[in-house]
Amino acid sequence: MVDQRIVSSLVVPNTTKIVLMVVDGLGGLPLEPGGLTELETAQTPNLDTLAREGICGLHDPVGRGITPGSGPAHLALFGYDPIEHQIGRGVLEALGIGFQLQAHDFAARGNFCTVDDHGLITDRRAGRIPTEKGAELVQLLRSIQLPGVDVFVEPVKEYRFVVVLRGPDLHGPLSETDPQRLGATPLAVEPLRPEAERAASLFNQWIAQARNLLADHRPANMVTLRGLDKNPGLPTMQEVYGLRAAAIAAYPMYRGVARLVGMDVLPTGESMEEEAETLKAHWEGYDFFFFHLKKTDSSGEDGDFEGKVSVIEQVDKVVIPALVSLQPDVLVITGDHSTPALLRSHSWHPVPVLVHSRHCRSDGAMAFSESECAKGGLGRLPATDIMPLAMANALRLAKFGA
Amino acid sequence: MVDQRIVSSLVVPNTTKIVLMVVDGLGGLPLEPGGLTELETAQTPNLDTLAREGICGLHDPVGRGITPGSGPAHLALFGYDPIEHQIGRGVLEALGIGFQLQAHDFAARGNFCTVDDHGLITDRRAGRIPTEKGAELVQLLRSIQLPGVDVFVEPVKEYRFVVVLRGPDLHGPLSETDPQRLGATPLAVEPLRPEAERAASLFNQWIAQARNLLADHRPANMVTLRGLDKNPGLPTMQEVYGLRAAAIAAYPMYRGVARLVGMDVLPTGESMEEEAETLKAHWEGYDFFFFHLKKTDSSGEDGDFEGKVSVIEQVDKVVIPALVSLQPDVLVITGDHSTPALLRSHSWHPVPVLVHSRHCRSDGAMAFSESECAKGGLGRLPATDIMPLAMANALRLAKFGA
Repeated sequence: MVDQRIVSSLVVPNTTKIVLMVVDGLGGLPLEPGGLTELETAQTPNLDTLAREGICGLHDPVGRGITPGSGPAHLALFGYDPIEHQIGRGVLEALGIGFQLQAHDFAARGNFCTVDDHGLITDRRAGRIPTEKGAELVQLLRSIQLPGVDVFVEPVKEYRFVVVLRGPDLHGPLSETDPQRLGATPLAVEPLRPEAERAASLFNQWIAQARNLLADHRPANMVTLRGLDKNPGLPTMQEVYGLRAAAIAAYPMYRGVARLVGMDVLPTGESMEEEAETLKAHWEGYDFFFFHLKKTDSSGEDGDFEGKVSVIEQVDKVVIPALVSLQPDVLVITGDHSTPALLRSHSWHPVPVLVHSRHCRSDGAMAFSESECAKGGLGRLPATDIMPLAMANALRLAKFGA
Repeated sequence: MVDQRIVSSLVVPNTTKIVLMVVDGLGGLPLEPGGLTELETAQTPNLDTLAREGICGLHDPVGRGITPGSGPAHLALFGYDPIEHQIGRGVLEALGIGFQLQAHDFAARGNFCTVDDHGLITDRRAGRIPTEKGAELVQLLRSIQLPGVDVFVEPVKEYRFVVVLRGPDLHGPLSETDPQRLGATPLAVEPLRPEAERAASLFNQWIAQARNLLADHRPANMVTLRGLDKNPGLPTMQEVYGLRAAAIAAYPMYRGVARLVGMDVLPTGESMEEEAETLKAHWEGYDFFFFHLKKTDSSGEDGDFEGKVSVIEQVDKVVIPALVSLQPDVLVITGDHSTPALLRSHSWHPVPVLVHSRHCRSDGAMAFSESECAKGGLGRLPATDIMPLAMANALRLAKFGA
């Protein structure tokens, strides 16, 4: 894996343009042994042309056998080591609902739960209260005030919510409060280093007030907090690569991860056509575009093989011609991870990747598919090597050493 | 990547012979999309035979997307991690002009520049004075003496020169003096650690005397120093691999890098025929030969596709039969990096590599080319893995663990 600091030290500015198109959950599996994957089943003449002209391979988002979440998978595609930069669930949950997390905000994922008269947990999910009820209780919790910080409470779904503290001198790491079993009391937030004491104390004050506010409610009469973490303050794409970077993504999670690495998140409609229009409208304003398409992943998670095939065909028909017509100097097409309909979930399988540029040294790949990419000239590569390759193909990296 | 210390711990002596032939800038690109590279265009029946009998692959000198300089690229081929062993430009520049850098020498790359009456830089390259003028001013600077060290000043080209301090207790790291902009004064050399104070002080004394000597000259009336670094004192090939190693290379830079890792640098003529004769003459005296051919890189840098093709054909016709007739136990043929004529420069593209030995497990590669190597049995490997492979094929490495 190429160290991001080495890449960063070699950056030279120019006017080339890079597009990183992420077809979420792109990789798949055949439904029957010996069959074709979703991508291999789909009729994709435009992608196949790009594969023939470009160079193909398979990338591992985190490592062989590791099924990545969307957060680490996208960080890796942006060239940030997902192992070095592990980001707490509180932060990812906040990003996932579109909360505009600022530098140094401290976020926790909250669960409503049920406790008995002795304060012992009897239901860790408060009977999975409906989303409307969760939102109503969140509204109640918004009355909590803490000294020296702003407090934000946002509903997620059912019994889940997010708490964010905003203010100076908030440091981690902090322990979680869910004892992970019934019959135990929720734990206190513990500072895991001396400098974390202030943040721990503030979260504990918040929990105490929440307990009082919820005391007479049933079944949700208490809360637990998990994944307490700070916005990690990653170096921006501008700082690392010298790129004016923009994100075109319809879903909050992906807009959030893009914001974590300093991209401008462009307003866009949700459809493929609208996203392509957004790209065209902002083409002159940026050097790098992260272009995200969600529906492949959603249909994979639904176990809808045919649906995923159909989305891929629509991408080929609608999006690819629009991208190609803009003549990016470097066009990278890949997924953040595999989501085989067969598994109805993210998976560990490596992900097809295609790099198209004037300088890419084409291989013999005849189509954009798992099997052709497995034979491709890029070979098998860690996802974090994709950005260095894109930068090199854009002639934006100087020589290392004399 | 195999750790050099592990390899070193496994070394067992024997009498086998290894030849590492480096065809500089070997990798290429087609001039037109879908076309053939320089190596694919060249008629190379002898190389193709070796490829059929041997095992092929593609190596990354430093990492995917990283375009290496000659220094790090060769260190990697010799099995030294080029990221761990980053060598300052002063050292590489000194090696490049054939200066016989000794252990612990401290070298800086110098620029003549122009300053105004207030000492502010008005031209960072002194109007690119001609090479003869640079040499004349270097002669003037040779009168500078410093306490406790020998001082060497050598011209490079135009406004560039090299200063080397030789003596005890010189330590880095040191800062550079070029402010990298006009209208600023040259900076002082700063010690970046306490033990670097003596070296910093000596370089600053040298600069002060240089300023006085140059005061009445125009346009070159001042100097800046960059890339101040020490010979890193790498373990030798003898120490690491137990190999009596010799270098056959016509150009100073490569002779210098070979000297950095303790090779005997053999006197040789510049032509391929003369280099092959040198190999033959010293065949009995060494276990390992680094055999370097430069002209492929030069024609690539000139953008001369046909010239590079022609040099490769000459290598195939003249050098390969000479090498093969000596019956080395292991013959490795590769490049230090790619230099596509299309780009007129070093590039990031992976480099064909061929390992030929009695024990190499031949693959199905039918020719020595980028495309056949991409399918080869060695797969894609870091350049630093080539020496362990060569050592293994020479049966010079014992088992790891019981």
